[in-house]
Amino acid sequence: MHVILDLCVVPLGVGVSVSQYVVACHKELEKTGLKSKLHAYGTNIEGEWDEVMAAVKKCHEKIHTMGAPRITTTIKLGTRTDRDQTMDDKVQSVLGQLE
Amino acid sequence: MHVILDLCVVPLGVGVSVSQYVVACHKELEKTGLKSKLHAYGTNIEGEWDEVMAAVKKCHEKIHTMGAPRITTTIKLGTRTDRDQTMDDKVQSVLGQLE
Amino acid sequence: MHVILDLCVVPLGVGVSVSQYVVACHKELEKTGLKSKLHAYGTNIEGEWDEVMAAVKKCHEKIHTMGAPRITTTIKLGTRTDRDQTMDDKVQSVLGQLE
Amino acid sequence: MHVILDLCVVPLGVGVSVSQYVVACHKELEKTGLKSKLHAYGTNIEGEWDEVMAAVKKCHEKIHTMGAPRITTTIKLGTRTDRDQTMDDKVQSVLGQLE
Repeated sequence: MHVILDLCVVPLGVGVSVSQYVVACHKELEKTGLKSKLHAYGTNIEGEWDEVMAAVKKCHEKIHTMGAPRITTTIKLGTRTDRDQTMDDKVQSVLGQLE
Repeated sequence: MHVILDLCVVPLGVGVSVSQYVVACHKELEKTGLKSKLHAYGTNIEGEWDEVMAAVKKCHEKIHTMGAPRITTTIKLGTRTDRDQTMDDKVQSVLGQLE
Repeated sequence: MHVILDLCVVPLGVGVSVSQYVVACHKELEKTGLKSKLHAYGTNIEGEWDEVMAAVKKCHEKIHTMGAPRITTTIKLGTRTDRDQTMDDKVQSVLGQLE
Repeated sequence: MHVILDLCVVPLGVGVSVSQYVVACHKELEKTGLKSKLHAYGTNIEGEWDEVMAAVKKCHEKIHTMGAPRITTTIKLGTRTDRDQTMDDKVQSVLGQLE
């Protein structure tokens, strides 16, 4: 089952600046080889369900290891059985109609 | 790693009424034995990370099997290493201060 | 336009325990007279769009006033034009089919 | 109060393909003059709270007008009082540390 997922990880108890934790999460994602793309309120990831979810777990584990005692995460994720669709397809299907 | 998760599964391409799919998802959750509680915009679930995530996957698989070609899901999830906390603890810590 | 909304407000930069801010937000909601119900990962609210959104803004303003320098909030919200539906209706339409 | 918001609008009861509604929403956003940027699972928007929230409402109204009887939307939004921060700042603070 292929999934497109939007991940937003927020560490609590580490002060107001959290970018170093987002960076660490991003590096974990890069290690997995999954396709991912950062935006201003999260990161889009795509791949097989189990691999993507394992990557999300890795991010939580990493951020706790870095000293964050608490993490709250928001995820949006989509699966479909009618056809294959990538992150790029989704963006292009909108941009194509905007032109 | 213990997790408290809020799950909102939305099938697309099956018309405007989606409660039968939410019901099916809820039955999948009940089979797992995980503690869960329905609210008006999702379901709270708690347990070990892998078990909870496996339950979320089961919901997606079940709803696709029922004929929904597309699902978009929103999840909030929290982990913490500083102390144990249940769903009931979270609600009580707020309600206790409201009295 | 009637809306059912799920609100989860997370203050950053105030340490790991955030319940006092959730309590303050809940008190703001109570002042509005809007129907709301707390759960383990947020609060369900229903009412007219403008009133509900004004309540969300009040929560942000209140929590900043209490000293939180940063807030990240997750909202799910639903509107429908085919029929009236309350938060209780949504829960009952699922629970009724579970029995 | 400046806000950075991530908007994901999902019309129900209109079949499995929803891109035309996302396009219409995007056009509404463009009319407002607010800065916005599409990604694979939503759109980032920034501006003053009231203007951004008015834009979100416009999207719901437009999509209902197009015939969608039901909409479920997921929003993440952030406000901060400690300093000014744009969407570009957020992305750059992560990318800068990745290099």
